[in-house]
Amino acid sequence: MSVGIVETKFVHFDTELRLESGRILGPITLAYETYGTLNRDGSNAILVAHAWTGSAHLAGKNSEDDLKPGWWDAIVGPGRLLDTDRYFIVCSNIIGSCYGSTGPASINPKTGKRYNLTFPLITVRDMVRAQQLLIDYLGIRKLLTVLGGSMGGMQALEWSTCYPDRIASAIVLATSGKPSPMAISMNAVARWAIFNDPSWKKGEYRRNPKDGLALARGIGHITFLSEQSMNEKFGRRFSTRDGLFDFFGQFEVERYLSYNGYNFVDRFDANCFLYLAKALDLYDVAWGCESLQEAFTPVQSPIQFFAFTSDWLYPPYQTEEMVKVLEELGKTVEYHLIESTYGHDAFLLEHETFAPHIKSFLNRIESAVGM
Amino acid sequence: MSVGIVETKFVHFDTELRLESGRILGPITLAYETYGTLNRDGSNAILVAHAWTGSAHLAGKNSEDDLKPGWWDAIVGPGRLLDTDRYFIVCSNIIGSCYGSTGPASINPKTGKRYNLTFPLITVRDMVRAQQLLIDYLGIRKLLTVLGGSMGGMQALEWSTCYPDRIASAIVLATSGKPSPMAISMNAVARWAIFNDPSWKKGEYRRNPKDGLALARGIGHITFLSEQSMNEKFGRRFSTRDGLFDFFGQFEVERYLSYNGYNFVDRFDANCFLYLAKALDLYDVAWGCESLQEAFTPVQSPIQFFAFTSDWLYPPYQTEEMVKVLEELGKTVEYHLIESTYGHDAFLLEHETFAPHIKSFLNRIESAVGM
Repeated sequence: MSVGIVETKFVHFDTELRLESGRILGPITLAYETYGTLNRDGSNAILVAHAWTGSAHLAGKNSEDDLKPGWWDAIVGPGRLLDTDRYFIVCSNIIGSCYGSTGPASINPKTGKRYNLTFPLITVRDMVRAQQLLIDYLGIRKLLTVLGGSMGGMQALEWSTCYPDRIASAIVLATSGKPSPMAISMNAVARWAIFNDPSWKKGEYRRNPKDGLALARGIGHITFLSEQSMNEKFGRRFSTRDGLFDFFGQFEVERYLSYNGYNFVDRFDANCFLYLAKALDLYDVAWGCESLQEAFTPVQSPIQFFAFTSDWLYPPYQTEEMVKVLEELGKTVEYHLIESTYGHDAFLLEHETFAPHIKSFLNRIESAVGM
Repeated sequence: MSVGIVETKFVHFDTELRLESGRILGPITLAYETYGTLNRDGSNAILVAHAWTGSAHLAGKNSEDDLKPGWWDAIVGPGRLLDTDRYFIVCSNIIGSCYGSTGPASINPKTGKRYNLTFPLITVRDMVRAQQLLIDYLGIRKLLTVLGGSMGGMQALEWSTCYPDRIASAIVLATSGKPSPMAISMNAVARWAIFNDPSWKKGEYRRNPKDGLALARGIGHITFLSEQSMNEKFGRRFSTRDGLFDFFGQFEVERYLSYNGYNFVDRFDANCFLYLAKALDLYDVAWGCESLQEAFTPVQSPIQFFAFTSDWLYPPYQTEEMVKVLEELGKTVEYHLIESTYGHDAFLLEHETFAPHIKSFLNRIESAVGM
């Protein structure tokens, strides 16, 4: 069942956050949504962390007129995997984004103007530092679990390593502890596409630089798919609208990238896209540590990992590296390699493949914490 | 040994070529180089077909001042794999290119202006059709072999299927008989990068649209490398020139793409890049046939195939599909899967891995034809 109509809330912190870069960010606004009710001992709270271009709007609709529900509606609601009759679910927009939390597109209260490129570079660790303020604010001492895919999984890893006493478990899907130069290079050309757009104006645009941002998003979509999913979805079919020998004629896969690219322009800010792409590339779970061993030493609670066979953005071997080190350290870790042709997007599209594993993992965590 | 100083020659055909699209192209100029001497019975001629942005300048230097030799110099020269004391080697610039053969950057003799987008779309089959004029002109009845990698391999496939009586063998490296939607999508975003550049002006530029073309080439380089080669070459190293938290700071892989992208602008025409990208995407060895079986039925002479394990642009399975069908048809076919981390570029960088196989293949062909 759907959670129905939900409202995005906002909380304002006067705190100044010291970022990994050494720079200061504050005050900070965080946009968030919650579903279900926090139980008396506060043991049923789950934080769902969103990916690159996601938002706090995880499930349900913000108004009756919404055509689509939240970004992971399929797993959140009464009777669903994240059962809102049982859990208190929180999802907050990350800092650096443009869906209500403080980011490059926000007004800098000190100048009255948009931050744009004066916004400091942020890391995934910074995002989680800000999230922690929200968890405190909501009166949650310890999260039952933090769950996320892609950049959401990176956040779950940061909770596990930096705030181990604040979580009882973590669930990490389609994530890398350290994106490869291949993943970086795809983001690099996406950034370049925006830099090339004269209407970007070094970030001082009035209107989103649409051609550059659409292309950047098109490049992103290539990384979300896989050779197999493209073969299944498009093959080498040529657009029926175009002639094969038209100079501007498009293959169906080409039209898909273009269509999704231009759609994205209406919903996401170009500077925010750039800042978050950078955060992805800079991500290193062993940031500030000598080794992965050192990084994972503080981990206290079980982590469940999922990787997807056709994910070439964050390929399974990157998850397996982390699992191996955690096992060597004697940590409680569980790993599922899911056979899928959907590529990186599998975590959003094929929840039925991993939902049963998450369900039984959560049951065990609940028993352990006596929920 | 190097072939030394060589001269690019040009030949002009008044013929009008009927293209696959139904359009007519002509007159046609072809740029070509030759190395070695055609023997009396004309049995020692080898055609080397170049890839996307290659040229007729296969080996040696065009002048003493050249910093670099031709694009596949390592395998051409006295005592080298393609021994110029033994063979007569021909390399011609493909039509659609900008290195002396007729292409979008050429002057249309009918208008006195550059063709630009009035140039007809061309296919790999059209390129080979034009090459055949050159082979006739040079007095070669039958080529000992046609050899090429990537788009050069596609040309070798076209010789095998469309002009089977004109060749005694073919050698095909790092090629696809039908590029995947993944390969198409990378070319699609490369094209898009050029279309986005306002200085492209729908092809009517005076100066190459540098930012768009550089980005397009940067995207191309991603497809030429592999996750492994990027790991070995760059890892996640950050440019020492930049701060990790500089907004415009670059990873080394990012700087590599940018450096190579901008270098390319001085040597290749944007419209030609677009036309040839399209020819790659449209390539289908079974073009005009009902099946791969039908396409390969006319093949008369042995084909030697090479694929490279880390080539994700034209992955080995695409070569294996062709080999399987040829074997089923009872054709003489030889296949080598070369273990390599270099990705698609392996065919240019690791000639020592395949040279011995080519040598023994050529020896057998020579015996068969009595050279």
